[in-house]
Amino acid sequence: MPDLDDLPPPPRGSFASDNSAGVPPEVLDALVAANEGPALAYGDDDWTRRAEAALRDLLGTPVESFLCWGGTGANVVALASVLQPWQAVVCADTAHVVVDECGAPTRFTGSPLLTVPHAAGKVEPDALEPYLHWLGSEHHPQPAVVSISQATEMGTVYTPDEIAALCDRAHAHGLLVHLDGARIANAVVATGADLPTMVRDTGVDVMTFGLTKGGAMYGEAVVFLRPDLGRRAAFVRKQAGQLASKSRFIAAQILALLDGDQWLHHARHANAMAGQLAAAVADVPGVTVTAPPVVNSVFASVPAAAIEPLQRWSFFWEWDLTVSLVRWMTSFATTAEDVERFAAGVRAIVGRVVVP
Amino acid sequence: MPDLDDLPPPPRGSFASDNSAGVPPEVLDALVAANEGPALAYGDDDWTRRAEAALRDLLGTPVESFLCWGGTGANVVALASVLQPWQAVVCADTAHVVVDECGAPTRFTGSPLLTVPHAAGKVEPDALEPYLHWLGSEHHPQPAVVSISQATEMGTVYTPDEIAALCDRAHAHGLLVHLDGARIANAVVATGADLPTMVRDTGVDVMTFGLTKGGAMYGEAVVFLRPDLGRRAAFVRKQAGQLASKSRFIAAQILALLDGDQWLHHARHANAMAGQLAAAVADVPGVTVTAPPVVNSVFASVPAAAIEPLQRWSFFWEWDLTVSLVRWMTSFATTAEDVERFAAGVRAIVGRVVVP
Amino acid sequence: MPDLDDLPPPPRGSFASDNSAGVPPEVLDALVAANEGPALAYGDDDWTRRAEAALRDLLGTPVESFLCWGGTGANVVALASVLQPWQAVVCADTAHVVVDECGAPTRFTGSPLLTVPHAAGKVEPDALEPYLHWLGSEHHPQPAVVSISQATEMGTVYTPDEIAALCDRAHAHGLLVHLDGARIANAVVATGADLPTMVRDTGVDVMTFGLTKGGAMYGEAVVFLRPDLGRRAAFVRKQAGQLASKSRFIAAQILALLDGDQWLHHARHANAMAGQLAAAVADVPGVTVTAPPVVNSVFASVPAAAIEPLQRWSFFWEWDLTVSLVRWMTSFATTAEDVERFAAGVRAIVGRVVVP
Amino acid sequence: MPDLDDLPPPPRGSFASDNSAGVPPEVLDALVAANEGPALAYGDDDWTRRAEAALRDLLGTPVESFLCWGGTGANVVALASVLQPWQAVVCADTAHVVVDECGAPTRFTGSPLLTVPHAAGKVEPDALEPYLHWLGSEHHPQPAVVSISQATEMGTVYTPDEIAALCDRAHAHGLLVHLDGARIANAVVATGADLPTMVRDTGVDVMTFGLTKGGAMYGEAVVFLRPDLGRRAAFVRKQAGQLASKSRFIAAQILALLDGDQWLHHARHANAMAGQLAAAVADVPGVTVTAPPVVNSVFASVPAAAIEPLQRWSFFWEWDLTVSLVRWMTSFATTAEDVERFAAGVRAIVGRVVVP
Repeated sequence: MPDLDDLPPPPRGSFASDNSAGVPPEVLDALVAANEGPALAYGDDDWTRRAEAALRDLLGTPVESFLCWGGTGANVVALASVLQPWQAVVCADTAHVVVDECGAPTRFTGSPLLTVPHAAGKVEPDALEPYLHWLGSEHHPQPAVVSISQATEMGTVYTPDEIAALCDRAHAHGLLVHLDGARIANAVVATGADLPTMVRDTGVDVMTFGLTKGGAMYGEAVVFLRPDLGRRAAFVRKQAGQLASKSRFIAAQILALLDGDQWLHHARHANAMAGQLAAAVADVPGVTVTAPPVVNSVFASVPAAAIEPLQRWSFFWEWDLTVSLVRWMTSFATTAEDVERFAAGVRAIVGRVVVP
Repeated sequence: MPDLDDLPPPPRGSFASDNSAGVPPEVLDALVAANEGPALAYGDDDWTRRAEAALRDLLGTPVESFLCWGGTGANVVALASVLQPWQAVVCADTAHVVVDECGAPTRFTGSPLLTVPHAAGKVEPDALEPYLHWLGSEHHPQPAVVSISQATEMGTVYTPDEIAALCDRAHAHGLLVHLDGARIANAVVATGADLPTMVRDTGVDVMTFGLTKGGAMYGEAVVFLRPDLGRRAAFVRKQAGQLASKSRFIAAQILALLDGDQWLHHARHANAMAGQLAAAVADVPGVTVTAPPVVNSVFASVPAAAIEPLQRWSFFWEWDLTVSLVRWMTSFATTAEDVERFAAGVRAIVGRVVVP
Repeated sequence: MPDLDDLPPPPRGSFASDNSAGVPPEVLDALVAANEGPALAYGDDDWTRRAEAALRDLLGTPVESFLCWGGTGANVVALASVLQPWQAVVCADTAHVVVDECGAPTRFTGSPLLTVPHAAGKVEPDALEPYLHWLGSEHHPQPAVVSISQATEMGTVYTPDEIAALCDRAHAHGLLVHLDGARIANAVVATGADLPTMVRDTGVDVMTFGLTKGGAMYGEAVVFLRPDLGRRAAFVRKQAGQLASKSRFIAAQILALLDGDQWLHHARHANAMAGQLAAAVADVPGVTVTAPPVVNSVFASVPAAAIEPLQRWSFFWEWDLTVSLVRWMTSFATTAEDVERFAAGVRAIVGRVVVP
Repeated sequence: MPDLDDLPPPPRGSFASDNSAGVPPEVLDALVAANEGPALAYGDDDWTRRAEAALRDLLGTPVESFLCWGGTGANVVALASVLQPWQAVVCADTAHVVVDECGAPTRFTGSPLLTVPHAAGKVEPDALEPYLHWLGSEHHPQPAVVSISQATEMGTVYTPDEIAALCDRAHAHGLLVHLDGARIANAVVATGADLPTMVRDTGVDVMTFGLTKGGAMYGEAVVFLRPDLGRRAAFVRKQAGQLASKSRFIAAQILALLDGDQWLHHARHANAMAGQLAAAVADVPGVTVTAPPVVNSVFASVPAAAIEPLQRWSFFWEWDLTVSLVRWMTSFATTAEDVERFAAGVRAIVGRVVVP
C-alpha cells in the first residue's frame, strides 16, 4: 500500500467537468440587473427579444432561436422540431444524445438513433452510406437528421470543411444536420473559425448553442439556421418542458456572455488551461496524454492503481477503465494555480503508487 | 369611441401572472452565495443534499425529492415516475396538465388524461367512478393516478379533508394521488393547514412542490411522499430533460425560500394583495368579482369593451371571453400601491367605456 | 330466487357483438382462391393492388388506401398519419378511440384526445369551439383532427348534412376530419346515402373503412380521401405493426365483400335483424328499447335482476349498469330464428324475475 | 448486352421470401372448421384457450401466451411488456427489430435499441459488456433486455448452449432475454434440439413464436416463459393494436400447425430445399454460396451483371450489393421442381452475362 499521507494541497477548482464551475461575475450581474420590475412570462419580454436578436447578429443571418433550460432538453427540442416520428437520427456511437441523455431524444421523439462508428469522435460522410440505402422503404427507419457534436465528446473538433462535407452529403439525400454545440465556444476558439463560418456557411440546419458549460448558470439556445425549420419549435419546446416561465433570466445571461465576446474569452482560457495541464504532466512517468488537447479536455492514461487515490484527492471521471484512461476538464474558472497543484498531485500520487 | 387619454399611471407591477415577477432579495443572495468554488454537477453536491434534507424536514417524513427546472417538466417527472404506459391519469378538465402544458404529460408518458368535469376547479371523489369501472379490462385505459391542483387553476383550494377523501377513494381502488402544487404556498396560507397536514396526513403520494410562482428564479421539486414510488424518478427526470447540471443553484433557492418560512411569507402577502384588489374594485359599476379571492387570483367579469383598453394600459389575461371574465394575479412583488393604481385604472377605463 | 330451469333453448347465434360472428361463405371462398401460388409479401402483389383499385372505384375518387390488420390499429394509422405529435384530436367522450382502445392512439401518437360531451354519440360543430380557442398558443394542445364514428358507439348515425357541417367547421379552422367507419356499412344502409355522398362529398379527409364487423375474418382499410394526406402512411402503418406480410389475404376479402355489394347486403340484414328484435321485445313488461334501432344494435333497459340470468343463458354486454341498460348486437349471421329465440328468452327470464 | 431470350421457364414458387408462400391445406381447413357458430370476440373463446394450452404443452411449462396479428407487432408486445420506458434493449445491428420494422419497437416503447456488432448474425455474451457499465447511472440508457433472433437474419442459428450462455450473462446483471422466433421452427429443425430445450431450459424469458413464415396465413404468439412477466401484456397488446377481434381464427391455425408437428414438418422441408438449392448452384461458375445453408436461406454471391436479369426472370432480394450478395429463401411450399428450375435459370443467366 503506497503512502498517501502528506500529499500536496488539492486545487481549489475541479477538473471533473466544465459544469463543476459556477458562473463568472458578469452572469451574476446580469441576473441582478434583469430582476428589475415585472416582465411577461414565457418569453414574451424584452430581454428575450434582445437575446434572440443578439443570436441573429452573432450568426449573421435571420436565425430563429428558442431558449431552453438545459443541454439534454435543448437537443430534444432541436431534434423533435425537425423529425417526423417515423424518421431517425444518424450519429456517432459516442454522441452525447446516445450515451449521456438516458435515452431522452428517443423517448420523446420515438425516433431511433442510428449509430455509426466514430472517427476520433466524429462522423465521416461515408459513414452515412449504409443508412442512406434505407431511404424510401417502409421497412426501414428513415434517416432524416445527422447529429454531430462540436467539440466532440472525445475532445476533438470538426474543421469547417469537414462540417461542410458532411452537410453536403446529408443534404444531397434530403437529410438535415444538427450540431450539438454544448462546447461550441471551445471549438470556435480551437479552430480559429468564427461561428458564422463554422455553422452558417457550412450548411448546418439547426444547432444547440451551449451556454452552461461555458459559464451560464443555466440555459441553452436552440438555433434554427433555416428559420422555416423552427415553425413547430415553440410547441415542441413547451411539450418538452423547456419553456422557462421567467425567460428573461436566461436571456440576460446570453446577453452578458455574448457582450464583448465573453463566451469566447472564457473558452479561450479554458482551452489554454487544458494545454497547460497537458504540458505540466507530460514528463510524469506512467502518465501519457493521448493527444495534445484541442479544446478544454485532457485525456490521459494513468497507472490503474493511481486513479482511485487521485480521485479521492481531487475528483475527476474515468473515461475508459479498460485502457486506464481518464478525463480532466478545465473551465473558465480554472486557474493556473489549479493546474500547477493538480499536476503536482498527479506527479506525487502516481510516483508513489508506481512500483519502481 | 371612449376617450382613453389622460389615464392614471399604470402600476409598476404586473397583474398578468405571478411569474411576471422577478425574485425577492434572498433568492439573489442565495445564488451569489452558492457561486463559491466548484461543485460536482447533476446534483452530486452539498447544496442539493441540504435542499433535499430541508424538504424532508418540511414534510416531516422521509420523502424523496427530485429538483427539476420548471413546472411542466416537474409534473411530467412526477406522473411518468409512477405511471405505466398503459395506464391513465384522471384529472379535472381545467387542470394545468390538460390545458396549459401543450400536451406535455401525454406526449412524454403516452398515457391519456381522462378528464372529469371540475367542481370549482376541484375533483370530487364521486367523479372518479365512471373510470373506476374501466379497471381490469384490457379494452379501456387503466386509471392509475388522480392528479389535482392545489391551489386550483380556478383560484380555489381543497381542504385537507377534501384531499383525504379523494385519496381514500383513489387508494381504495389502487390509484395514486398526485398533487400539482405550483401554488401550494398560497393554498397552505389560505387554508391555515401546514404542509404535512395537507399532503402527508391526507395520503398524497407524490407532489410537485412549486417554487417559481412563489419567488424562485427557476426550479421546482418533485416530492415522493412514499419514497419507494421515487425509485425510477432519477432516470425519468434525466429523460425528461429536467436534471440541472449546476443543481446547486436550484438547491440554494429552495434553502433560501424555506429558511424562516419565506415561501409562506411571500404567499401570505400575495394572497392579501388579491383580497385588497377585490375590495378595491368591488364598487366599480360593471365589474363583478366572481368570488372572494381565496389565494392570489382575482376573477372578475368586466364589460367586454373595457378589456382590451385595460390590457393595453396594464396587461393581464382573459379567462373566458364568452362570459367576459378576466384573471388578475398578485405575487410576492405586488405592492399596495400597485393595487391602488390598478384599481384606479379599472375604475377609470370601465367608467369611460360603459355607456350610461 | 326465480325459477330459471326449463328455459327455452338459447339462439344459436350470439347477440354479444357483431364480431362474435364468423365469416360468410364468400370470404372463405376468397381466402381459398387467393391461396394459389406465390405472391410477394407486404402488399406488393396483385390482390392488394386490385383491392386498392376497388376502393377507389367505391369512393369514386382517387383515394389512397392502406390495408391494416384490425380496427384499433387502423384508427391509429389513420390518426398518426395526419397528426404532428404536438397536435391533438377532438372527439366525443363516447368514441371508441377514447373508451375501447386501451389508449392506443394516445400511446402511439403522444397526442391528447380532447373530448367533448356527445350528443347521442355524435359530435356537434359547436362542441369544437372551446378547443378552437386554443389554436396558435404554445401553451395548449393544438387541435388538428376531429374524429367521429359512423355509425356511432351509441347506435346512431350522422346524416351526410351533419357530417358536412362538421367538416366545414373543422376545415374553416384548419382541422381535418377522421371518420371511424368500423360500422360504416350499417350507416350507409341506415341513411340510404351511398358512400361517396357520405364521406367524399361531405369533406371527410381520412376514414377507417371497417370490414371485420361486417363479415371479414380480419382486415380494415385506412382510406385517405385527400391522397396527399397519405404520404407518410406507409411508414406509419409499418411502425404501428399493421402491415400484413401475406397482404393478399386481406385484399381478397375486401374484393369479395365489395363484389356485388355484399358488404351492404350483410349490413342491411344485420340492421333488419335489430329492428325485428326491438319489435319482438317491445311488449315485454319491464323491457324498454331506448330508441328504435337505426343500425345493428338494440339498446334496452332491462330489470336489473334479469341481466345476469339472461347473460348466462345467452351472453351479451352491459352498456350502463347505473341505468340497467344493455346492448344487443346483430350481424350478417343473425337469423330470424335467433331473434325469435332470443326474444322468447328475454320474455321468459324477465317474466320470472319480475316480482308481480 | 447478353442474350436473355429463350430462358428456361421460371419456377412456379418464389425464392423471394418465405412469406411469399400462401398456406398449407391444414391451415385452410382449420379456418373453415373454426367458422362454425358464434364465438366471443377478443380471445374470450374456446379456440383461443385451446391454442394457449397447446403452447403450454409445447413448451412443457406453464407459459402465458398472447396471440398477435404479425411479427413486428408481436415483437413490440413482447418488448413493451417487459421494458420500462427508461430502459433499453441490446441487440445485434442486424436484428429485425433494428433494420426491418421501421423503428416500431422504438416508437412504441420510447426505449433505445443499443446495437452490438453481430457475429454471423448472433450476439455474443461479451458484446453486452460495454452497455452493462451503464447500469445504475441516470445519465445512460439502462439496458434491460437482450433481444436475439433464432434463426438469425443471417441464416445462422444459436445452439442451446450459446443461448444459455447469453441468458446467464444477461440474468447475472438483471437483464431479461427476448427471442425473436419468426423462424424458430427452422432453427429447431436445424439444431435438432426440441423447443423446450432451446428456450425453456436455456433461460429465455419471453419469445415471439413465429407462425406466418412457417405456414400460417397470419398470426404470431408472444410467449412469456416466466408467466409473471406477462402480467401487463394484455394491456400492451391492446394498445399495440395486436388484439384480434375474431381471435379464434388465429388460434385455429396454431392448433393446426402444432397438431402432428406440422410446423416442424414444414420447416424441415424448407430447410432441405435450401440445401438442395445450394447444392444445385454449387458448380455454377461465378456463383458462390457463402456458407452451407443452415436453415431455409441461401446467401450467394453472384456476378453483379446477372442480378437484375435474374430478378426479372424470378424475383428475389439483394442482401448486400456492395459485395454482390443475394438471398434466396425457401418455404414449406418450395418444390424440388422449383429448385431445379431456379438453379437452371441461375446457371443460364449467369452463364450468359459472364464475359468469358
